[in-house]
Amino acid sequence: MRQRQEVQTLSWQAELSLLPTLAEDGGGVVILDQTRLPHEAAFVRLTTLADVARAIRTMQVRGAPLIGATAAYGVALGVQEGRTFDDIFTTLSATRPTAVNLHWALARMRAVLEKSALAVRRGVSQSEAAWNEARAIAREDAEANAVIGQRGLELLKPIVERKGRINIMTHCNAGRLATVAYGTALAPVYAARNANLDVHVWVSETRPRNQGLLTAWELREAGVPHTLIADNAAGLLLMRGEVDAVLVGADRIAANGDVVNKVGTYLKALAAKADGVPFLVAAPLSTVDFAVASGADVPLEERAAEELGEDARFAEKVANPAFDVTPAALVSTLISECGCIKPSELAAWRG
Amino acid sequence: MRQRQEVQTLSWQAELSLLPTLAEDGGGVVILDQTRLPHEAAFVRLTTLADVARAIRTMQVRGAPLIGATAAYGVALGVQEGRTFDDIFTTLSATRPTAVNLHWALARMRAVLEKSALAVRRGVSQSEAAWNEARAIAREDAEANAVIGQRGLELLKPIVERKGRINIMTHCNAGRLATVAYGTALAPVYAARNANLDVHVWVSETRPRNQGLLTAWELREAGVPHTLIADNAAGLLLMRGEVDAVLVGADRIAANGDVVNKVGTYLKALAAKADGVPFLVAAPLSTVDFAVASGADVPLEERAAEELGEDARFAEKVANPAFDVTPAALVSTLISECGCIKPSELAAWRG
Repeated sequence: MRQRQEVQTLSWQAELSLLPTLAEDGGGVVILDQTRLPHEAAFVRLTTLADVARAIRTMQVRGAPLIGATAAYGVALGVQEGRTFDDIFTTLSATRPTAVNLHWALARMRAVLEKSALAVRRGVSQSEAAWNEARAIAREDAEANAVIGQRGLELLKPIVERKGRINIMTHCNAGRLATVAYGTALAPVYAARNANLDVHVWVSETRPRNQGLLTAWELREAGVPHTLIADNAAGLLLMRGEVDAVLVGADRIAANGDVVNKVGTYLKALAAKADGVPFLVAAPLSTVDFAVASGADVPLEERAAEELGEDARFAEKVANPAFDVTPAALVSTLISECGCIKPSELAAWRG
Repeated sequence: MRQRQEVQTLSWQAELSLLPTLAEDGGGVVILDQTRLPHEAAFVRLTTLADVARAIRTMQVRGAPLIGATAAYGVALGVQEGRTFDDIFTTLSATRPTAVNLHWALARMRAVLEKSALAVRRGVSQSEAAWNEARAIAREDAEANAVIGQRGLELLKPIVERKGRINIMTHCNAGRLATVAYGTALAPVYAARNANLDVHVWVSETRPRNQGLLTAWELREAGVPHTLIADNAAGLLLMRGEVDAVLVGADRIAANGDVVNKVGTYLKALAAKADGVPFLVAAPLSTVDFAVASGADVPLEERAAEELGEDARFAEKVANPAFDVTPAALVSTLISECGCIKPSELAAWRG
């Protein structure tokens, strides 16, 4: 199943001895094609701005943090091609509307490029400056997630100490496949596993795109026990006491602590609240958008009807919103590289 | 797509000018094979007890009320074959554990057969007595559902009067395909449509078996506007105010008003409660089980991992509970042929 191709991995990726989700490769980048997982682990080489935009739009690359890092490399490729800034940033920012990491990474790249007149005088070309910044964004994502893993582990430890084991429910894929490395929601799971704690993950299928299968794939790769369920089964498992914590990622966190994440997250948060189970959201600071007051202000992507499958043609119409809003009041804790806080304390991370 | 075969329909079925879900046919019964819908409308002839048991187990026949009526005909076929009562009732009651209508219909058939010594003296054979009772169960199901349609319509009318239209969200298929005729949750929808009210239905996919496609199929057949969604999208639509009422069926209603229904129902009930949207449960009295105190006492069927699809093999394990429990506190109104009540008033229906 796994076809490891020769790709040049960054040093910390090689240390993980896992397939990289994103790696530099000569004049381009190589991504693990997530539309072909879990069936095969195949790589796609992206050498132009258009390649990157298409990969993000078609979800060959997905997951808020990984989209951000890949878009940063897209900017570098655009500069290398001699495209105008407007062209580059318009093209990339139009790929996906909801995850703020994309726009955060583009803003960061734009700031560097606009200041690069100075760098050029020091003998660093604009293209080099772009590649360096993209590399920094990718490295910092991995570093942030490693810290999220440790912060999250501290939250989970008391549960394990009390029960001898821990059952975590997740939604979508907020694992290493959604990031440059380690994952966000799954980073604490991997940290727990590395600490030899008895951890089991309930993996929600995540219709319509079935990103739960990506989660199952990477948990299996990492040797973490897990059980796949239909999204509909989440409420029953929570009601039965079979879940100790719900742990998800985020595509955008509003200033008031509302969490925009893969559609279906809100239903799990309601069920967690109803049964007194902690609902934890793990995301790097790049996912927090202090510019939007609440979740209601975040554009929620509506995707194609075809994603529901061929049989959806039997219905008169199809609606396919890709994200939903979990009100801050349902979120127990936000976990980032800055630590663990309540959503109401989010202003502390502003800066 | 529709292949109407020559099947003998009961008089009230012929009046509906729809494909019957269940009809007598000489020495057997004919069912609409629900595992082949929505791709094709094909019939299967059941001529033995074993045929009926298999059809129920494999969900060629599904939906609590329809399972009950089909099982009743299964008893008649078993008697016709000369099988012992123990054999007949053991075989049929083992097919599905959760929907109480099955057990209710079997108990009713058994009572008739045990009293049939008297009937035999009047010249009615045990087999005839069984066929007559099965026929009565089927006819009464249709009649009960027709009344449910009118009772439910009264509940919906004030909403339509206020808004000019009504958006109803349903889960699974509690339509005419789940019953002998008219449906339970969809009976009020059809009644609204017949009254020329502007009604639209949000149809939840209902993983893993996708009974939402059955709902889409029958709503299209009846000309009711509808939109298919992934189960995960239900919370967002409710939060956005795009749903005026959630209307579902039930597989078993406990004495305290807890509702056991297709897995995922509980999540919709939580979201309806969170957004102040009425959560309505429509079911004939045969679905109420006063012998179980609460939903926790109802056996919830666990079905095969394969139902999640071929790709589920990529996960280490699969859990596939087919039903969940919606606490009475989340249910606004129960609708049966006896009228509309709050779950706390359920004792009024005890008889």
